[in-house]
Amino acid sequence: MQFKISKELLVQIEQLIHQKNDQELSILLNDLHHADIAEIFDELESEEAIYIFKLLDSEITAEILLELEDDVREKILQGLSAKEIAEEIDELDTDDAADIIGELPQKKKEQVISELEDVEHAKDIVDLLRYDEDSAGGLMGKELVKVNENWNVLTCVKEMRIQAENVTRVHSIYVVDDENRLKGRLSLKDLLVTSTKTMISDVYIKKVDSVRVNDSNVEVARIMQKYDLEAIPVVDEMGRLVGRITIDDIVDVIKDEADKDYQLAAGISQDVEADDSILELTKARLPWLVLALFGGFISVTLLESFQGAMQFHKELFFFTPLIAAMAGNVGVQSSAIIVQGLANHSISGTIFNRLLKEISLSLLNGLILATLLFVGSHFLLGVDTKIGIIVTIALVSVIIIASLIGTSIPLILDKFGIDPALATGPFITTSNDICGILIYFSIAKLILGF
Amino acid sequence: MQFKISKELLVQIEQLIHQKNDQELSILLNDLHHADIAEIFDELESEEAIYIFKLLDSEITAEILLELEDDVREKILQGLSAKEIAEEIDELDTDDAADIIGELPQKKKEQVISELEDVEHAKDIVDLLRYDEDSAGGLMGKELVKVNENWNVLTCVKEMRIQAENVTRVHSIYVVDDENRLKGRLSLKDLLVTSTKTMISDVYIKKVDSVRVNDSNVEVARIMQKYDLEAIPVVDEMGRLVGRITIDDIVDVIKDEADKDYQLAAGISQDVEADDSILELTKARLPWLVLALFGGFISVTLLESFQGAMQFHKELFFFTPLIAAMAGNVGVQSSAIIVQGLANHSISGTIFNRLLKEISLSLLNGLILATLLFVGSHFLLGVDTKIGIIVTIALVSVIIIASLIGTSIPLILDKFGIDPALATGPFITTSNDICGILIYFSIAKLILGF
Repeated sequence: MQFKISKELLVQIEQLIHQKNDQELSILLNDLHHADIAEIFDELESEEAIYIFKLLDSEITAEILLELEDDVREKILQGLSAKEIAEEIDELDTDDAADIIGELPQKKKEQVISELEDVEHAKDIVDLLRYDEDSAGGLMGKELVKVNENWNVLTCVKEMRIQAENVTRVHSIYVVDDENRLKGRLSLKDLLVTSTKTMISDVYIKKVDSVRVNDSNVEVARIMQKYDLEAIPVVDEMGRLVGRITIDDIVDVIKDEADKDYQLAAGISQDVEADDSILELTKARLPWLVLALFGGFISVTLLESFQGAMQFHKELFFFTPLIAAMAGNVGVQSSAIIVQGLANHSISGTIFNRLLKEISLSLLNGLILATLLFVGSHFLLGVDTKIGIIVTIALVSVIIIASLIGTSIPLILDKFGIDPALATGPFITTSNDICGILIYFSIAKLILGF
Repeated sequence: MQFKISKELLVQIEQLIHQKNDQELSILLNDLHHADIAEIFDELESEEAIYIFKLLDSEITAEILLELEDDVREKILQGLSAKEIAEEIDELDTDDAADIIGELPQKKKEQVISELEDVEHAKDIVDLLRYDEDSAGGLMGKELVKVNENWNVLTCVKEMRIQAENVTRVHSIYVVDDENRLKGRLSLKDLLVTSTKTMISDVYIKKVDSVRVNDSNVEVARIMQKYDLEAIPVVDEMGRLVGRITIDDIVDVIKDEADKDYQLAAGISQDVEADDSILELTKARLPWLVLALFGGFISVTLLESFQGAMQFHKELFFFTPLIAAMAGNVGVQSSAIIVQGLANHSISGTIFNRLLKEISLSLLNGLILATLLFVGSHFLLGVDTKIGIIVTIALVSVIIIASLIGTSIPLILDKFGIDPALATGPFITTSNDICGILIYFSIAKLILGF
């Protein structure tokens, strides 16, 4: 079942579109999974995609919409009327529906909502639109199965059959009191093995994990991962059950969070993809490069101020890129380990102990590298021994300082509530370049006295 | 329900352990979730953790074992006899059990297996141990609910009740033929709304996604994510149902994969954490630093070969770190976007188009940065205009070349089946440093003719 879109299939579909051969197209597409059709859409021109879109059943197209890349979805929605979009929305779960409506321009948003057929569904969606998209409320859906603690299993099963009609996947059965306050849960397994005459209050599990509607999505992801939950109920400030979040939504949060940290480490400040426009990519990349450029200005000024050494010790200048590069690499390594540790909540001990460990680590690394450098500069590069000694001492010092900077900056940012991932990548390499050059030439000046 | 271990709680637990106050300890710990107890274990000395471990019920301790950091778990397992470990294993699902037994030394592994009480369970575990841990077989568990297509719903429900006893979470009900070949599935929802007299062959859904037992875990994760599946059945070479993989196992694969790419981008070649030993951290970090050091040797040699310029154009040497840093940063940006695109399967179009886009992008970035550099070098740094022009031309050229290298190397590695993430971080920065310096001085030599 490993599906890969073949070139042949794409060409065939494009031909059928140009021939307006709707019958053949329908036969071809009906065999495909909606996620695969979405991948095909990503490759087609938007007019072609819209053509197919209007050909397919709204049950399938609604699912396709969810799977599309953001920019492709935007183009397709632009090509549809408010009524057509409303037909798609009617097919979707409330959380997905709210996500898609939330992306529309204000005016179209209102038009689409007024065109929705199922009033209950529309109410739920409007309710969800109130929440910040990075909060539990922004992630949750309204589809859930809940029973009253005062019912018996028979009533419960009857009610559940009705409720289950609207719920694609039944994860848990939540138990509430008369005020809709979350009291506990019934597992599906319990339901399979319990007799129908039992009272709910006698069988339900009183312990149930839940999150508050204003908790952040990253916090919800952490909890669901930690406690291995497939769904978690969401309660409001009064403890009333207002929705549920399922693991598939959390998978996206985890992925996005990891992607974001990765991009920051590489000096990309927005969530962009290889297929985004040149303008978007520039907006994400240029700021970091400008930062690095200004860092470069500082290093130019620094080197200028040490130009006295050039007359008798020009070899010193040959080693600047080496020292700067080592400082940058060590700094990025140290910061990445801290950033990841902070993200995974796996950092124990005090900052002081952390720095102490980093010093031992960089001392070990530094001594090994210094030996290699000393031997290499002597035998491979044939450098003067005095210069070799200076470069070697500088390397060890630079590695230690660079790793301390790399370790402490993310920890400090985190203390102040700033995303520590900002401190990886260009920021660390640039500051470590500058520090590295400064330390290197200061040591040289101390020893050679130029 | 946001649980954070407080310092007070930790101190209290440690005191109770030293007082051997088992009763108080039990009361205190029984109120906690096993994932929280696991977090406490990560903070305790291993003797303390083992003390608590032996105090608790094996139903809870088995769950705790699963949640522990690898090194903590290893220490606790060392403190337990084979019989004690077997009691834990008996409580676990087969996939988790196999994971834990797989970590034991060969001899202890055999002892534990021979101590297992439930023979069926032991057979399943031994079977799972055969598979590569990075394959679908290594991820799957044996606990599933399956029914024969030739049964009616009544028999089916009876059988399911028996099977469900062994299954913590019922995701799907799989339908097989007499040869155990996977034919389709019954959804839980269908079960809630179908009459008991219907025949299975009349109601089951004939379309079912599955993976092969030898598929890679990353491929399984991709499929489950793409098709939004909470569980997927695993079949062997003959299409027989041999297990199932659930979304919670996939969450770990996705997280690990993202973490790995992140670490590679930062120049860390093994899966290490901030709390790992200095030796382990050195093993993961040193190789990349050695690579960067040898790259540095090349840059020293390069600069040496251009030393003729030093007499009349010493400013040229002040700009080397700036040029090298820009080359490194641009290269990492380009490669990161490609690596992430490859990981997410979101790269469309040919390599040629990709490179063309990268050239336009870097031309745009390069021209903006070059303007800043030219203005900056003139007004801020007061550099000679001729040198300013050379540095500016060099910057644009270096940015274009660096982005082409950053884009093409991961694409080429991927074509040859090598992990493209290897090409981010130190590898790209080092090669771009060298190329940057070479281009810069070649342009200077061409213009100034030293």
